[in-house]
Amino acid sequence: MWYTIYYMVYLDYAATTPLLKEVMEAMHDAEKRFFANASALHTPGHLALNEIEDCRELLSELVGCEPDEIIFTSGASEANNTVVRTFEGHVIETSPLEHHSIIEAARVYRGDKLPKLYSYMLANNETGEILELPKPEEGAFLHSDLTQVLGKLPIDVKKLGLDYATFSAHKIGGPIGVGALYVRKGAPLKPLIIGGNQEKKRRSGTYNTIGIIGFKAALLHVKKYKTWQEYDNRVRKLRDALARRILEEVPGSSLNTDIAPGRSLPNILNMSFEAAEGESIQLYLDAGGVIVSTGSACAAGDIKPSHVLMAKTGDAEVAHSSIRFSFGIENNEADVEYVMKVLPPIIDKLQKISTIVRKK
Amino acid sequence: MWYTIYYMVYLDYAATTPLLKEVMEAMHDAEKRFFANASALHTPGHLALNEIEDCRELLSELVGCEPDEIIFTSGASEANNTVVRTFEGHVIETSPLEHHSIIEAARVYRGDKLPKLYSYMLANNETGEILELPKPEEGAFLHSDLTQVLGKLPIDVKKLGLDYATFSAHKIGGPIGVGALYVRKGAPLKPLIIGGNQEKKRRSGTYNTIGIIGFKAALLHVKKYKTWQEYDNRVRKLRDALARRILEEVPGSSLNTDIAPGRSLPNILNMSFEAAEGESIQLYLDAGGVIVSTGSACAAGDIKPSHVLMAKTGDAEVAHSSIRFSFGIENNEADVEYVMKVLPPIIDKLQKISTIVRKK
Repeated sequence: MWYTIYYMVYLDYAATTPLLKEVMEAMHDAEKRFFANASALHTPGHLALNEIEDCRELLSELVGCEPDEIIFTSGASEANNTVVRTFEGHVIETSPLEHHSIIEAARVYRGDKLPKLYSYMLANNETGEILELPKPEEGAFLHSDLTQVLGKLPIDVKKLGLDYATFSAHKIGGPIGVGALYVRKGAPLKPLIIGGNQEKKRRSGTYNTIGIIGFKAALLHVKKYKTWQEYDNRVRKLRDALARRILEEVPGSSLNTDIAPGRSLPNILNMSFEAAEGESIQLYLDAGGVIVSTGSACAAGDIKPSHVLMAKTGDAEVAHSSIRFSFGIENNEADVEYVMKVLPPIIDKLQKISTIVRKK
Repeated sequence: MWYTIYYMVYLDYAATTPLLKEVMEAMHDAEKRFFANASALHTPGHLALNEIEDCRELLSELVGCEPDEIIFTSGASEANNTVVRTFEGHVIETSPLEHHSIIEAARVYRGDKLPKLYSYMLANNETGEILELPKPEEGAFLHSDLTQVLGKLPIDVKKLGLDYATFSAHKIGGPIGVGALYVRKGAPLKPLIIGGNQEKKRRSGTYNTIGIIGFKAALLHVKKYKTWQEYDNRVRKLRDALARRILEEVPGSSLNTDIAPGRSLPNILNMSFEAAEGESIQLYLDAGGVIVSTGSACAAGDIKPSHVLMAKTGDAEVAHSSIRFSFGIENNEADVEYVMKVLPPIIDKLQKISTIVRKK
């Protein structure tokens, strides 16, 4: 049986983005031309490797580092785990706002030996909040998961003082299954995947050439359009318009995202709705053709309250009643209008049910 | 600058395969329909997850296990590392014929505590040799990297007595960046990538839905055509024909692959050429439009003699003068003819140069 989704306002870009048209085209073209194993010594292998090096150069240019400080991985979770596990047995300091791939890896690998690893994201994936990075003491190292930041804000890993940074293709219109890790020259790194010695012995496994070509196309889009400007102007306006209209038109609504300029990523809006449960709102919105998340989608079907909102507010009810709207460059004013047609009656209904339940 | 390869006889299928037409079609179609994060609780997320579960079911059916004994990974190297690292600090027994992702991981993680892990491939990727699996003692576990075997021979992990098995999409016409690990129910497993708890907490990271849909299409091809029959009939004939013609027409040629039925995978042919260096042969063949490897492409541009042939023959000259021809279902008789036009003069020239060098 085949389903077709006829109309959909997609507001879950922070979970993953659809492929950009130019990414699709680049990948489809590449499938026929660059299929060979990029580690092979023959011409088709070299041609594939050239494409990979092009992507490495482009990413390093966009984030302000040297090409050989970039390692390609299967995604952000692998990149995060590689860094955290490098410091296995050492003090690993992180915040409760981090992604599970940091928090959980830190829990498993954390010890009490020096040096310290600090792992702090620059912007949170659930609330969009822009955070301050710590200043590690001499001999300690700083990692930041910049997955949500790439393409949304200009990045300079050197100015940020980072030893490590994580990037992902599928948050900027590239394919899932491709990520990258910036490792400052001289910073320690233990490979997570050992074997064929690709990536100068720092990450083994057959190069995902086609995926990396897709990443390259997405990075070219970022560079060509300076997408952080587009986010700062057009996308921010959509986000702010939705925030204002919800606050005005939906009783019991409140912001979990500070939408003042410079306080949050321009594309994320996290809100709570008094006496309405997040999962229920999400399901009703889904049925109405509006696709959103309750916090991070990464926690694999988890319906516990968001660990980020719990850490931020300490209020289980706020966390349980929250919804994340996350915008992308394909969204427009009509999407905001559509949400404002669908959302208010849903909240109204859920709040009424909740009142009835409480009265019992 | 764009290169175009006008004509090419591709005989490096053991390194990686071009995408099957139906794999491309399935992935291109899926890019538009199944782009959502498969861990998300909304409809597009569920639809993506359904596709993943379909692939899991199909693979488990093809290799004789339960669907929830299959974990998707970013590839065979990650799957191999996950198994080996689960036994960190324990005795890990393996053979010098294994892939580097086993040998090197075992070297790093090996200790002296019980229980043992035995990791032995069923067929070697460089020579195609079919090997006997060990019988582990009570309390020990058996892993086999079946990357080269899937689609070439029927597989039943239970009959093989395996606790773990590794599979890869890109050796059967699927995409690079997708692999799978069979883990027998009850066998221990430490996740290598920790975080969002996908794959029942056994492998975290956003699902590569499109890649897994490509894997599914490749597995459907395996199932529909019972590709092991095609390999055993048509591909084996090509391989054997090339072997016989080289032995007859090229002086100083010898087999590193036992081509008798049941002794090797039907698609791999490893040969040595007296007084001719493997890398040189490969480069000249490349210039002539014939794409082959010297042993494994995975060792990332490595030009050391193949560790497999060194282990098998103990003869550095044999190892240094070896070439792997690996066939796929797209090859035909014309390819064999073409190789036999290009190869003999190359060997002749290299042998003459070598004689001159030796005389000096």
